[in-house]
Amino acid sequence: MEGTRVDLQTGHLTGGEVAQSRRTLGELRGVFAGEAARAAMDQQTVVYEVQSHAAVAEGTPGGLFFGTSNVMPGQVDGEYFMTKGHYHARRECAEYYWCIEGKGALILMDETGRCWFESMQPGSLHYIPGHVAHRLANTGDVPLRVGACWPSDAGHDYAAIAETGFSARLKAVDGVPTLVTE
Amino acid sequence: MEGTRVDLQTGHLTGGEVAQSRRTLGELRGVFAGEAARAAMDQQTVVYEVQSHAAVAEGTPGGLFFGTSNVMPGQVDGEYFMTKGHYHARRECAEYYWCIEGKGALILMDETGRCWFESMQPGSLHYIPGHVAHRLANTGDVPLRVGACWPSDAGHDYAAIAETGFSARLKAVDGVPTLVTE
Repeated sequence: MEGTRVDLQTGHLTGGEVAQSRRTLGELRGVFAGEAARAAMDQQTVVYEVQSHAAVAEGTPGGLFFGTSNVMPGQVDGEYFMTKGHYHARRECAEYYWCIEGKGALILMDETGRCWFESMQPGSLHYIPGHVAHRLANTGDVPLRVGACWPSDAGHDYAAIAETGFSARLKAVDGVPTLVTE
Repeated sequence: MEGTRVDLQTGHLTGGEVAQSRRTLGELRGVFAGEAARAAMDQQTVVYEVQSHAAVAEGTPGGLFFGTSNVMPGQVDGEYFMTKGHYHARRECAEYYWCIEGKGALILMDETGRCWFESMQPGSLHYIPGHVAHRLANTGDVPLRVGACWPSDAGHDYAAIAETGFSARLKAVDGVPTLVTE
């Protein structure tokens, strides 16, 4: 029996029980501050892809999921390509991220709206505690590849972020990734 | 601030919040079938080492730990060097293992005593469901290095294994890793 495999150089998952999704610029209306700039770009451009391995059903207590996120290099009006970001529906659930390839930032926000980020480079390990919203941004020139592991009963709450966003945005300010409050 | 790092080639963890432990042959009395053979070997020989990153306290609901296990190559009377093995104290808790380097086996046993194993080679991804005891064995000639992620409230139940052991042992039979029932 051929099992699931993770390419240790890229994080790419192959084999059974692996699901994939991607988000294009056309699917990310309202996510970037520069909405007019986003709308004027090629809507087919892939911003990020996610693979996940699920051996158990979503919601299983005590279980885990394993995945890889790839965020492409790019900017929308100076704001780095990034994921939508989410809280976990079960707020106390944590997540591990580890950077496999590329250069980026893990943007974090607690429930009081305080926003900060951790720099990512190959081998950096990041613990996202419960109650902290998180998104990935690519601040480099090649795909940012990040491995992840999280509880199968964590769930995803994208709505809280879709409604109010993060309190700051990661932009290239004189070429340096900087959190900018609008 | 320098964060925690994982060497992507070896799984070695450096930086804050990393704990380490190791087990020598002298500390593994009664673990291998060939107890007399074990007792006659160099008791200082390292059988395995474990590193773990803990950003939260043991028992934290919704949290996670991240680690690396290294099992050295070797045998005790034909039985491969292996870890003690454990159930999780909170039985429903799962764990992910992924093989980084070397060749080995993930030996599993459910609560009915059924025992089986999955072959490990670099890039193999292994989901250990809840209620399943697990141990690592090195079936190759170089250290077996395995990454791991598990819930911070899983706990470890070594006692159940120490008392009754696994129902089968992984031995080299004509050079082939084979589960042998005693």
